[in-house]
Amino acid sequence: MSETIFSKILRGEIPCHRVYEDALVLAFMDINPIAPGHTLVIPKEARATLAELSDDSAAAIGRVLPRICRAVMQATGATAYNVLQNNGVGAHQAVFHVHFHVIPKVAPSGPGSGLGITWPVTKPSSEELAAMAQRIAATLAASPA
Amino acid sequence: MSETIFSKILRGEIPCHRVYEDALVLAFMDINPIAPGHTLVIPKEARATLAELSDDSAAAIGRVLPRICRAVMQATGATAYNVLQNNGVGAHQAVFHVHFHVIPKVAPSGPGSGLGITWPVTKPSSEELAAMAQRIAATLAASPA
Repeated sequence: MSETIFSKILRGEIPCHRVYEDALVLAFMDINPIAPGHTLVIPKEARATLAELSDDSAAAIGRVLPRICRAVMQATGATAYNVLQNNGVGAHQAVFHVHFHVIPKVAPSGPGSGLGITWPVTKPSSEELAAMAQRIAATLAASPA
Repeated sequence: MSETIFSKILRGEIPCHRVYEDALVLAFMDINPIAPGHTLVIPKEARATLAELSDDSAAAIGRVLPRICRAVMQATGATAYNVLQNNGVGAHQAVFHVHFHVIPKVAPSGPGSGLGITWPVTKPSSEELAAMAQRIAATLAASPA
C-alpha cells in the first residue's frame, strides 16, 4: 500500500479534473500535461507498480482504456497517441501509485507535442530470444493467476 | 480488421518466442528488443489501435499485464520498466495490430537500455484543464460502454 498524492485525490482531499470514474478506476487530467488532453487513468487500489496490482484492478483499467482513448482523441482532434505506464524511478515514474498516461501525439517535438520516444534497438540471436522466452514463460507458468 | 505480421504469428504461419497465451491474448518476445526481456502483449482480435479494440480484449490484456510484468522482471532481474502502447505512425506505431510493450529499463541510455522518454511538459491553467476535462467527460458519457 502506498500513500501518495493520488490517495488524496481518491479521497477527495485534493481536487482533480475528473473525466471518468467507476468502482475500481478513476481518470483525470494530468496537471502537468505533455500534450493537450493528457489524461491519467489510475486504479483506486493503491499500489506503487503494475506488477503489484491485483488482476481485477488491472482488468478494469484495461477494459476502460479504449473508451477513454476514443474520448480523448475525439475531444482533442488528435489521431495518434501513446499509452504509457512507468514503474520505478529509473523508468520515469514520479508518483508511486499505478497510473496509465493517455497522451495525444500532436507534433514531432516541442512543449506540448506529446511523448518523445528513443528506441535503442538491439538484434539478439534467435537462440538468445528463445532462452529469454523460456525463462519468462517458466516464471509465468509457476506464478499464481 | 487489419492483416499484419501479428496475424501471421497468431495463425502460426510465422514463428514467435511465446511466453504466454490465453483465449484472448498472446505474449511473445519482440525480435528487435530495446532491452533484454522486451515482451509484446497482443490481443488475438485484430485491431489497429487501442481505441478500436473491444472492451473484452482490452480487459483480458489488462488482467494479465501484472503477471507478465512480474515474470519479465523476475527473469531479467530488472527492477524498473515501462509499459507502452503506441497508436498511429506519428506516435511510433510500426505494426498496425494493437500491442503493449513491456520494456525493462536497465540503463539511462545506449543500445538495449530500454525506453528513452522525452517529457515536454506544459503548465495550462486550471480553467483550461477543467474545460478539457469537461469535453472528454461529456464524450465518454455519450459513448457506449
